[in-house]
Amino acid sequence: MKPFSSSPEDTVASLGEIALLGLIRQWLGAVAPPCPEGMGDDAAVLNGPPSNLITTDSLVYGRHFDDGIAPEIAGAKLLKRNLSDIAAMGGSPGAAVMAGFLPPDTSLDWLKRFTCGLAACARQFGVPVVGGDLTQTDTFLGFNLTLLGDTVSPLLRTGARIGDLIWVTGELGGSLLFHHHAFTPRLAEGQWMAQQDRDIIHAVIDITDGLAKDLPALLPPKSGAALDVSNFPIRNDAHEAARQSGRPILEHVFSDGEDYELLFMTDPCVGQTGFKEFWARHFDTKLTCIGEVVTSDSPASLIDARTGAPLQISSGYEHFGKA
Amino acid sequence: MKPFSSSPEDTVASLGEIALLGLIRQWLGAVAPPCPEGMGDDAAVLNGPPSNLITTDSLVYGRHFDDGIAPEIAGAKLLKRNLSDIAAMGGSPGAAVMAGFLPPDTSLDWLKRFTCGLAACARQFGVPVVGGDLTQTDTFLGFNLTLLGDTVSPLLRTGARIGDLIWVTGELGGSLLFHHHAFTPRLAEGQWMAQQDRDIIHAVIDITDGLAKDLPALLPPKSGAALDVSNFPIRNDAHEAARQSGRPILEHVFSDGEDYELLFMTDPCVGQTGFKEFWARHFDTKLTCIGEVVTSDSPASLIDARTGAPLQISSGYEHFGKA
Repeated sequence: MKPFSSSPEDTVASLGEIALLGLIRQWLGAVAPPCPEGMGDDAAVLNGPPSNLITTDSLVYGRHFDDGIAPEIAGAKLLKRNLSDIAAMGGSPGAAVMAGFLPPDTSLDWLKRFTCGLAACARQFGVPVVGGDLTQTDTFLGFNLTLLGDTVSPLLRTGARIGDLIWVTGELGGSLLFHHHAFTPRLAEGQWMAQQDRDIIHAVIDITDGLAKDLPALLPPKSGAALDVSNFPIRNDAHEAARQSGRPILEHVFSDGEDYELLFMTDPCVGQTGFKEFWARHFDTKLTCIGEVVTSDSPASLIDARTGAPLQISSGYEHFGKA
Repeated sequence: MKPFSSSPEDTVASLGEIALLGLIRQWLGAVAPPCPEGMGDDAAVLNGPPSNLITTDSLVYGRHFDDGIAPEIAGAKLLKRNLSDIAAMGGSPGAAVMAGFLPPDTSLDWLKRFTCGLAACARQFGVPVVGGDLTQTDTFLGFNLTLLGDTVSPLLRTGARIGDLIWVTGELGGSLLFHHHAFTPRLAEGQWMAQQDRDIIHAVIDITDGLAKDLPALLPPKSGAALDVSNFPIRNDAHEAARQSGRPILEHVFSDGEDYELLFMTDPCVGQTGFKEFWARHFDTKLTCIGEVVTSDSPASLIDARTGAPLQISSGYEHFGKA
């Protein structure tokens, strides 16, 4: 049976990534455990310790990197994408295995530099690379890395409540100009949060597909996010991206993705000022309160806190074509 | 920098897979621990339990499966390839994560059947699929699966000695006609071997690239394998493959690969008859003693036990073009 279809409604392109993942979980049935032991968070929680987190992420030529990026940077990015997932679970990274899909004309010099970049990043974060697999392809060049981790107490996407404050580390938008391969996974920040009282820190995710898609993933049922867009931590490159694209800067801030910043919710019993002071005692990392969780009839809506009107933005990066 | 090269000596095709893996381990440097904690065996041994084995394997359209195979069979094969590695370490499988590389015209019907086939296999072997990643490609269709496992005592490739008996489960050769997607991973047999005295069972591997490549991987320095080729367990399909290819049947037996049988070495203190009786008390699985480890000046040589002459066979399946 051919795995490709000429009828559009039978193709994966007819679905967005979320719908496709939902179908796959449905097809897997009982062998796909519910979250957090299964899919649906930044990493799955196994019955460890010592290795009680597992996550996997891929890096594809022409999609996640191109000729304009030094091979070392691409190699490090393969690992850093996974480290960011472990950070969003509050974990410390463990061992990794890597799979390469290589066409015959893959340059050894390029592959050496790619691997050395990965190795330098692995040394920095204490990750042993313990296994791998190489498969020959016709022209496709891509990699996959699976990373283990452990945590005292996993930071989940679920747990936010009405009234929670919404925080983001670093800055957002314009990531494709530079940041998407220059970011630092927020491991120290995630590990610190995992040690805090879970009555204070309620829900955590790393922003990979953009705030417009990743923020709704944290919102509890019948809630929305009232956002103070005038106070957003906008990356300088977002201005440049808006100039180049001709689109509003907020579109870039909400939808560019690949920010690899932590987005999280805290209990309002610790106020904005109190939590910022608490944070500043441990980290120089910029931290901004961008809004709060409010009741809402339309599911997972993003609202302008000043006007009360829905924010008009596209829905974050969607793989497989459909928004 | 372009990852592709037009000078042949700078391409991965200029090397065999073993040489390429060797280079990658060298480039990784200190972040690639030595075997068995790192690469070089069927799975890496982590500092567990509970999850002290990890392995990864890929499945690519046009290479490991094609339109002639039912999607359910291809899905099961992705998991069974990894289960065979866990079997060769004497382990029980744990959780799995899967990565898919899908072009936009991937058929949903095909993908559903692929996933359901994987799920049925996962149910059979008690493997929870806890995470995944989907990446859009232009035309490449492939998958990667990483599988955890645990074992009371890992069965390593190292440990064989001069005088050891050489055993193989099942039958060999002609796997591409049918067996490569119909095989059963030898998990029960591997787990039983892991519980036996390590003074009896010395070294284990699963045959994926063919006896000609996988048997030398078990041989200690300055040794060869004296093989009783008249007593080989030849799969019926190997005869058919030889008829179709016009090549000698032993070429198919030694070099077809994808047998997914266990190849192992035992101490001669338990003789052939004794070990076969011991085995038969636990398993119906066919078991054949195919030879013994002998001293040899030429490294890892395969010798005809009757004549003492080197066996003239090609060297097993080699990825990346070079033998």
